[in-house]
Amino acid sequence: MIVNVNGQIFEQNELHSNAAKISVFDRAYLYGDSLYEVARTYHQKLYAVEEHLLRLAQSASLSHLKLSQSLSFFAQEMSRTTEVFFKNLPPKEKKNTEAYCRIIVSRGEGKIGFGHSCIESKTLFTIIVQKLSPPTSEQFQKGYAMKIVDRHRNSPFALTPAMKSGNYLNNLLAYLEATEQSDFSYDDALMCDSRGFLTEGTTFNLFYVRRGMIATPPFNGGILDGITRRKVIELARKNKIEVRETYFTKERLYEADEVFLTSTIKEVFPITRLDEIIIGKHTQNSGKPGPVTVRLAKLFKKNLP
Amino acid sequence: MIVNVNGQIFEQNELHSNAAKISVFDRAYLYGDSLYEVARTYHQKLYAVEEHLLRLAQSASLSHLKLSQSLSFFAQEMSRTTEVFFKNLPPKEKKNTEAYCRIIVSRGEGKIGFGHSCIESKTLFTIIVQKLSPPTSEQFQKGYAMKIVDRHRNSPFALTPAMKSGNYLNNLLAYLEATEQSDFSYDDALMCDSRGFLTEGTTFNLFYVRRGMIATPPFNGGILDGITRRKVIELARKNKIEVRETYFTKERLYEADEVFLTSTIKEVFPITRLDEIIIGKHTQNSGKPGPVTVRLAKLFKKNLP
Repeated sequence: MIVNVNGQIFEQNELHSNAAKISVFDRAYLYGDSLYEVARTYHQKLYAVEEHLLRLAQSASLSHLKLSQSLSFFAQEMSRTTEVFFKNLPPKEKKNTEAYCRIIVSRGEGKIGFGHSCIESKTLFTIIVQKLSPPTSEQFQKGYAMKIVDRHRNSPFALTPAMKSGNYLNNLLAYLEATEQSDFSYDDALMCDSRGFLTEGTTFNLFYVRRGMIATPPFNGGILDGITRRKVIELARKNKIEVRETYFTKERLYEADEVFLTSTIKEVFPITRLDEIIIGKHTQNSGKPGPVTVRLAKLFKKNLP
Repeated sequence: MIVNVNGQIFEQNELHSNAAKISVFDRAYLYGDSLYEVARTYHQKLYAVEEHLLRLAQSASLSHLKLSQSLSFFAQEMSRTTEVFFKNLPPKEKKNTEAYCRIIVSRGEGKIGFGHSCIESKTLFTIIVQKLSPPTSEQFQKGYAMKIVDRHRNSPFALTPAMKSGNYLNNLLAYLEATEQSDFSYDDALMCDSRGFLTEGTTFNLFYVRRGMIATPPFNGGILDGITRRKVIELARKNKIEVRETYFTKERLYEADEVFLTSTIKEVFPITRLDEIIIGKHTQNSGKPGPVTVRLAKLFKKNLP
C-alpha cells in the first residue's frame, strides 16, 4: 500500500504506521468536510481518471469548495503514486495485480468553526493506492443478496448524493443495518428516497431488467452520477437495448427479470436476491445472473482499453 | 491550545504543528465516521459533562458504534486535558479565561470499506481544549441576523440530527450559503425540514416568543436534543412561562415578538433579524433583544454553578 499525503509518498507496510498522518485540524477529520474519488487500473494503467476528476470538480462546486490544485496536478499525483505502487510490488505479484486508487481532498486545515477566517490553508489531499480486489467469477455467478433498508438515502435538498463527499454515514449506516440482520445474510444495502422510490446502493448504482428493457433511477432523483452507470447506459443504447431513467418502487424491483449494480470496482454485477426474494423466479435464470446482465458485463469488459 | 490524542497530551503552539496527528485510515478522516461533543467551563470547571457524555452514548447507539472506552474515562480525560490547558496559560490570562472542550470519538482505524472486517481497532478519540470566545455583551445587544436557507436540514429518516456526528456538511453548507449572500450580511443560517417547518440552526436550537409564550420545534421533528435547550425549557416552565414544542413555518417566525437561539457556547442569544426582516417590529423592542429573551438569559446565568 502506498499513501501520498500532499505530495509526500509513504510506503505503508502496516496500517497503523506512524508515517502517513494528517492534522486533527484537518476539516476532513473534524467535519467530514472533504471530497473523494476512486479510480482503478486496467493493465496497470489508471482508467477514466479525467472523468473521475471532472466529477471531483462537480463535487467541489456543489460544496462551495475552491480547489487550490488543478485537476491535471491531481491526475499526475494519482499516476505517480500508482506507479510507485506497481514498482514496489514483489516480483511474483508484478504481473496480475491491479490497483485501487482513492483521492481525498479536504477543505484544508483550520480553526474549529465555520467562519471564513477559520479555514486558513489551501485544500489538502491524500491519495491511497492499494491492491484491487474485484469480485471473482464465482461471486459473479452467485450474485449479491441485497436488503432494501428503512433508512432513506440523503435528500438532494439536504446533502445531494451527486456530491461524492466525506460525509458517508448515510451509506455506512445503511450497510450496517443490512448486514447486521439476523434473519438472513445480506451482502449490502439499497436505499429509497422519502417517497419510497429506489435510489442507489451504498457504493453503486442500480438497474433492473424487465422484458428485455433496462430501467434505472434518474440522475436528478438524488443519486451519484456514476461513471460506470453512464458507460453502461451508453453501451446498452448502442446495442439496441432500450434504457429508461425512471422512478420505481421496491414492488417493481421484486418483479424484475434481472437486477444488477454498476460501480468502478464491481463493473456490472448481478443482484440475485432482494429482501429474501429470489429475483427472476418466473424466468429460466431464477437466482442466477440473467442474460442481459451477462451481456452488459461482457460488453463493458470488451470496451475497456 | 491543548490536544489529547488517545490519551497522549500535546501542547499546540501552532495550528500546523506536526505533533497532534491521526492516521489517514482513521474512519473520521475517511468517512466522517465519528461522534463529538462540545462542553465548556464555568469558573474553570467543565460544566454538564455528564449530560454531554450521555448524549455521546445516545449518538453512539444511533450510529451502531460500540464505544471501547467508558463514559467516565472520557470524563476523566476531558478534565485532565482542561486542567493542563489552565495550568499552561500565561499568568495574565490565568484569571478570566474559560475553556472550550471538544471530544471527537471515531469508529477507529481500518481498511477502506464497510465490511465488519475493515474496522480492526477500537474506537479512538481526540480532545481539543482551547480558549472560549463567548459572545460579548455588545454582540448580545445587537443580536444575530439569520438567513433561512433553501437547503433542508438532514431528514431524521436519512441521518438524524439527534446524532451529533462528524458528518457536518449539511450544517456547514447552510452556513456558507447564508454568509455568502451578497445582498445582506448574515451571521448564520436556520434550516427547515422538507415540509417547510423550521428545525434548528447550524450549531444551535431555535425558539420564538409570541404574546409571552415560548415555542420551539419538537425534538422528534429532527433536531439535536440540545442541553441548553432542555435547561431553558425547564427554567421557563419553573418561572411560569408557557413553552410549547410545536412545528412552525418561517411566516410564523417573521411575526414573532422575539426570536432567540440556545447553545452551549452562546447560552441564550437573541436573533434580531431574519431574512432582512426586523424581529418584533410591532413591539417596543424592534430589532433589539426582547424582555423574555433577556429574562431567560439572566435566569440561565443565575442557575449556573
